[in-house]
Amino acid sequence: MDSTLNPLHSTRPDTARPKSPWGRHDPYVSMEELGKSFVGFASLPHQIHRKNVKKGFEFTLMVVGESGLGKSTLINSLFLTGLYSDRILPNTSEMIERTVGISKKTVDIEEKGVRLKLTIVDTPGFGDALDGTESYYPVLDYLHEQFEQYRMDEMGKHRTQIKDNRVHCCLYFISPYGRGLKPLDVAFMKDLQTHVNIVPVIAKADCLTKAELLRKKETIRREMEFHKIKIFEFSDCDSDNDVEWTRQDFEMKNSVPFAVVGSNMQLRMDGRKVRVRAYPWGVVEVENPDHSDLVHLRTMLVRTHMQDLKEKTQDNLYEQFRISRMNMRSPSMSF
Amino acid sequence: MDSTLNPLHSTRPDTARPKSPWGRHDPYVSMEELGKSFVGFASLPHQIHRKNVKKGFEFTLMVVGESGLGKSTLINSLFLTGLYSDRILPNTSEMIERTVGISKKTVDIEEKGVRLKLTIVDTPGFGDALDGTESYYPVLDYLHEQFEQYRMDEMGKHRTQIKDNRVHCCLYFISPYGRGLKPLDVAFMKDLQTHVNIVPVIAKADCLTKAELLRKKETIRREMEFHKIKIFEFSDCDSDNDVEWTRQDFEMKNSVPFAVVGSNMQLRMDGRKVRVRAYPWGVVEVENPDHSDLVHLRTMLVRTHMQDLKEKTQDNLYEQFRISRMNMRSPSMSF
Repeated sequence: MDSTLNPLHSTRPDTARPKSPWGRHDPYVSMEELGKSFVGFASLPHQIHRKNVKKGFEFTLMVVGESGLGKSTLINSLFLTGLYSDRILPNTSEMIERTVGISKKTVDIEEKGVRLKLTIVDTPGFGDALDGTESYYPVLDYLHEQFEQYRMDEMGKHRTQIKDNRVHCCLYFISPYGRGLKPLDVAFMKDLQTHVNIVPVIAKADCLTKAELLRKKETIRREMEFHKIKIFEFSDCDSDNDVEWTRQDFEMKNSVPFAVVGSNMQLRMDGRKVRVRAYPWGVVEVENPDHSDLVHLRTMLVRTHMQDLKEKTQDNLYEQFRISRMNMRSPSMSF
Repeated sequence: MDSTLNPLHSTRPDTARPKSPWGRHDPYVSMEELGKSFVGFASLPHQIHRKNVKKGFEFTLMVVGESGLGKSTLINSLFLTGLYSDRILPNTSEMIERTVGISKKTVDIEEKGVRLKLTIVDTPGFGDALDGTESYYPVLDYLHEQFEQYRMDEMGKHRTQIKDNRVHCCLYFISPYGRGLKPLDVAFMKDLQTHVNIVPVIAKADCLTKAELLRKKETIRREMEFHKIKIFEFSDCDSDNDVEWTRQDFEMKNSVPFAVVGSNMQLRMDGRKVRVRAYPWGVVEVENPDHSDLVHLRTMLVRTHMQDLKEKTQDNLYEQFRISRMNMRSPSMSF
């Protein structure tokens, strides 16, 4: 892969690796050096780092939203894959008969020797049914089952071999139409929030002008607050007092809900290949921060908060679930 | 109003008036001339024409579609009015509680001495409910009631004073997302078609590229055929063997479902004011046929087929309704 075309390749390669106490450009320390003045535990981050690189990383992302909001195209644009190139779309009569299914796809991405096993959980058919509420129960059931399965495995005999299918993040696609959230969005997100980190995105944002987008974001944020919908909160990412980094972080947080545009079409512009949507009146570059928040979303998901999303799933959401399950059983156990 | 800015002002002013058998530029014929060689019935179209101009025209248009598809903005753009400038949008909690209402607005438009009383029947709240089917029954009920009321009035004493509230045309807004029609669209249109002339439009079409739009139109046409949805069929408009007129007519028919873009924002371009949507990547001109089918839709609705829509309502849809009502009563009458 050409690294200049791939925004997943960090332009700050050192941030992925914990800083060495012996200087930025000397991450691996010889035994000799260690013996001189340190006990050695300063190398622990590097041990973990090496172990992790060897093991590879896993991340499970769910995409939820009405059909036609460009979920698959966005995933392709985010991770620069062709994950959904073989997809066959159903026609209306199939849509009527179909119930919401859960489809899982896994793709191995590697860059600079770091491997990521990315699992995308898709919910085809969501919102197709005449009655919207029918759509979202299968999704909630799925999330619940993954937690429950993990809980059973954790209490079982083969703890080291647990296959963790818990979902770390849910990209919730909000329609760009309408003023803010739909009643279905509110009802669904209120149920989702206890099982998964919600990251809301405004889909197909290239149909909104700058002013409309700002108003829509503001309205959505206000409505989420009003309805007490808890979305994933960005903890401050390690800024290293880097001004540019801090600025990026600030911009990223201010972009929520991310207004995204996806595309599978590539165009060569100024010598580089860019994903675009070409209209008669102009060309939308999906990775141009002036046109969409795709790059902010990618930065957040991949470069700064992937680990955070996993930890919040484990420490907050799953723990809450486990405790509530314990509370459910305790009355019967006390007899 | 500045006539150069107003596309409602026909650039072919003579087409609105039946051609005089005495030459295009002499529509009014003196009694003297009439006495010379004609009995006089050739002036009948002109008598009707003058009567109609005096009475003014009435037209009732219904707009149906999910909230947020830009129905009000489109009406403003179509008829160059500010009909919905005072609208207050509900928030999500209001939307949940609200049922579909029917709102009627009437506006008098005049150009070149011809008056049009335009009534817009809006269906705010359509599709907001969690269960979609709840949304469309009030709309069907409304259409049914107007037919029934007219039927009762027609059989009553004061036939000359009937207030005709029947809807002549229904602009059905299809979401630009998704592949074609949603199951709700199919179910709704199948019920609508017996009560009103359906003219389908693809709303907010500025989020679709040319290729996507062609594909979407093709899919929708195929699905409508498959589901036996009968939309308003354009009879050939009186072309006067005018090549330009015939080409326009052909283009208009090929545009169905009309891909429309509306806007309340005006920009001065090349010395004239145009309605636009300004994106960072370009400016959509809603009346540019290369950008949207708005002009085709307006031509059809106002300049070529308004009378046709009214006649089809009276002669086909209402007659069908009347006969079915008669059939319903006949068994009890035979006893």
